[in-house]
Amino acid sequence: MTQLRRSWVETANSSETGFPLNNLPYGAFHTGDGTLRAGVAIGDHILDVTALENAGLLDLPETGVFSRGTWNDFMALGADVWESFRTFLTDALSEGAAQQSDLEKHLVAISDATLEMPFTVTEFTDFYAGRHHAFNVGSLFRDPANALPPNWLHIPIGYNGRASSVVVSGTEITRPNGQLKAPDMDMPVFEASKRFDLELEMGAIVGKPSKGRVSVQEADDMIFGYVLLNDWSARDIQAWEYVPLGPFQAKATATTISPWIVTKAALEPFRTSTPPREKELLPYLSEPGPMLYDIDLEVGLAPEGKAETILSHTNYNVMYYSAAQQLTHHTTSGCPMRVGDLLGSGTISGPEKENRGSLLELSWGGKEPLTLDTGETRTFLEDGDTLTLRGAAQGDGYRIGFGECSGKLAPAPALD
Amino acid sequence: MTQLRRSWVETANSSETGFPLNNLPYGAFHTGDGTLRAGVAIGDHILDVTALENAGLLDLPETGVFSRGTWNDFMALGADVWESFRTFLTDALSEGAAQQSDLEKHLVAISDATLEMPFTVTEFTDFYAGRHHAFNVGSLFRDPANALPPNWLHIPIGYNGRASSVVVSGTEITRPNGQLKAPDMDMPVFEASKRFDLELEMGAIVGKPSKGRVSVQEADDMIFGYVLLNDWSARDIQAWEYVPLGPFQAKATATTISPWIVTKAALEPFRTSTPPREKELLPYLSEPGPMLYDIDLEVGLAPEGKAETILSHTNYNVMYYSAAQQLTHHTTSGCPMRVGDLLGSGTISGPEKENRGSLLELSWGGKEPLTLDTGETRTFLEDGDTLTLRGAAQGDGYRIGFGECSGKLAPAPALD
Repeated sequence: MTQLRRSWVETANSSETGFPLNNLPYGAFHTGDGTLRAGVAIGDHILDVTALENAGLLDLPETGVFSRGTWNDFMALGADVWESFRTFLTDALSEGAAQQSDLEKHLVAISDATLEMPFTVTEFTDFYAGRHHAFNVGSLFRDPANALPPNWLHIPIGYNGRASSVVVSGTEITRPNGQLKAPDMDMPVFEASKRFDLELEMGAIVGKPSKGRVSVQEADDMIFGYVLLNDWSARDIQAWEYVPLGPFQAKATATTISPWIVTKAALEPFRTSTPPREKELLPYLSEPGPMLYDIDLEVGLAPEGKAETILSHTNYNVMYYSAAQQLTHHTTSGCPMRVGDLLGSGTISGPEKENRGSLLELSWGGKEPLTLDTGETRTFLEDGDTLTLRGAAQGDGYRIGFGECSGKLAPAPALD
Repeated sequence: MTQLRRSWVETANSSETGFPLNNLPYGAFHTGDGTLRAGVAIGDHILDVTALENAGLLDLPETGVFSRGTWNDFMALGADVWESFRTFLTDALSEGAAQQSDLEKHLVAISDATLEMPFTVTEFTDFYAGRHHAFNVGSLFRDPANALPPNWLHIPIGYNGRASSVVVSGTEITRPNGQLKAPDMDMPVFEASKRFDLELEMGAIVGKPSKGRVSVQEADDMIFGYVLLNDWSARDIQAWEYVPLGPFQAKATATTISPWIVTKAALEPFRTSTPPREKELLPYLSEPGPMLYDIDLEVGLAPEGKAETILSHTNYNVMYYSAAQQLTHHTTSGCPMRVGDLLGSGTISGPEKENRGSLLELSWGGKEPLTLDTGETRTFLEDGDTLTLRGAAQGDGYRIGFGECSGKLAPAPALD
């Protein structure tokens, strides 16, 4: 496994930082003036690449690539540019680099910046690729004997989500109202969701467009990077609405992503294989190599004004399908994929109770309340709760961090 | 009911044209040079509004509104501008208008133009609001005793579709390959869909954004106009994939829309109410007035090189939920809506067999083949078939037409 690469940005050399020179994740930020700028995290700083481009310090095939302050236009330049730009950054930020004096005037402290969406989400698709999650949810929504749908071991099941509701970490989330009907009700009601939940996921970002079906290798080549993703879910709305056409308003309140795109290049040393197949997959889904990543994940919940409790630990490597397999399946119908498409992995639950990636599973449908470190209990989220996802790949003396994926829950809008 | 308004464009005064002065639908086109331009259909001509704007003949609050050749930027200007622009067009194209000499040099014959997507689809949502269709499909996919899902009479059920696959009339459609498994198969296969179908729908276009829940009146105010919409559907892929998260690749090959946005203003004389409620709706879905439209619809199928058979006649007025109700429901979770969002009505099937809006229903799941006028039979679509939707509202001596919504089916891509 690769070792820490040292940078002249001293805070990037700590084994504690998530942003060593090995990472170089891509984000968007503003400071006082509100102008959105593209940046690269290094230690506790951001290198302002919009400023670098304006100063003529970047060698890119087009001008104005970072003028909008997001990474879509950069992604559209293609994989060769992804690689050459990363090589440039790595060289220029390395200990002893000649460019230090040019670059250090374009460093901004992360603590002085407000992070915004690192890219414009073109379309959002959410999958359901966690074996343990699918089994748990199937047991709760249907029954344990038929928990896993018959297609689950053959298809990386997904549904189209809502791009307009994807927000960056730190955005306040408002508990939704919705139409729901508990099994014991005669008629549905319109009221605030009482079973509002998180879903711990990874998001894969498509950086290269396609028309027509792509292979799993081609799909992997199309992926630009990954983020943490919390697909907030109203379980009571979902239970009433989802038959027969799938989740709709239950998943449309918000999906929060972490602010830094961790590139596929940075994650390369952490590749790992999907688990053994319980049933042989059709050839179009076969993987030519390891397509998952070893990324430790955790979920923390802090009640309003109180200390956080870690609810769950898990790892992206438990997923049954990789993002590349999901993307391949997404193209089978001829569905065009575009730069900025975001694919949610599905909830990442491990085999044990402490590895579950949703409160639905952790509280077993609300029947087994969790006790927080503060002594309070939770079945689902309460107003004022702050929910935070964290993730990192652990290298030899360094960490590839994603930053936090966090959101605080505000009360539902008043009803008429 | 309003009568025909006469135009100095003589072909607009025929009772046969779909594009009289009363209509003025909005489209996008190019001629020889390939530059996309925005245009308004009048009789058998298109008024080139991009050229009008460039010539300084339009009074709009911003410049460059039509420079991209689509209607998104115009929609974003808001309902007051929608109205004042329509008033300008109506006056300037009226018989005896002083602007005739200025405008007639910017008329292009429709026959000389290639029509393109009239707007960029931001996100696409497809609903399931046809009572007869839902009953028929439920009978076929599940069973007649439980055909209508328990939520159907309470929720305008919808799912998120795929904006990247929406194409304009005339675009060739490629039969999809996909993963499918007939009930008598042990294992799924990857092969060409054998049950590729149409869905006759109307599409409503959101012209005003929202954050948070909107009322049905507010939703109606947000709608800019309507198009015909064919949501091509692979029934065999759908049957295998859709439990539990809904249709995905079955609906992602393509959705074809007609090339002209017929504005809500043009349809105003044809407003009609949704049918009586079988169960009382929750108050948030109550309609303050008539929100559907009386629009005659038909489906034609022409085998390769042969004459067309009309498969079905129906009317948009049979729908159980209006687009405004659907849009209201779409916002209940707080889901942000944006300019250019497209909402499919769901398949519009009337009460009788000859009113059914899909081959799935017309051939009753493939069990009752249709005989075409050519003597051939059809259960689902065959390669080379051209499928055409047509629609018009019938006024007093004039018609509000939508243009054709047409696509020819090409064979599936070769398998490896």
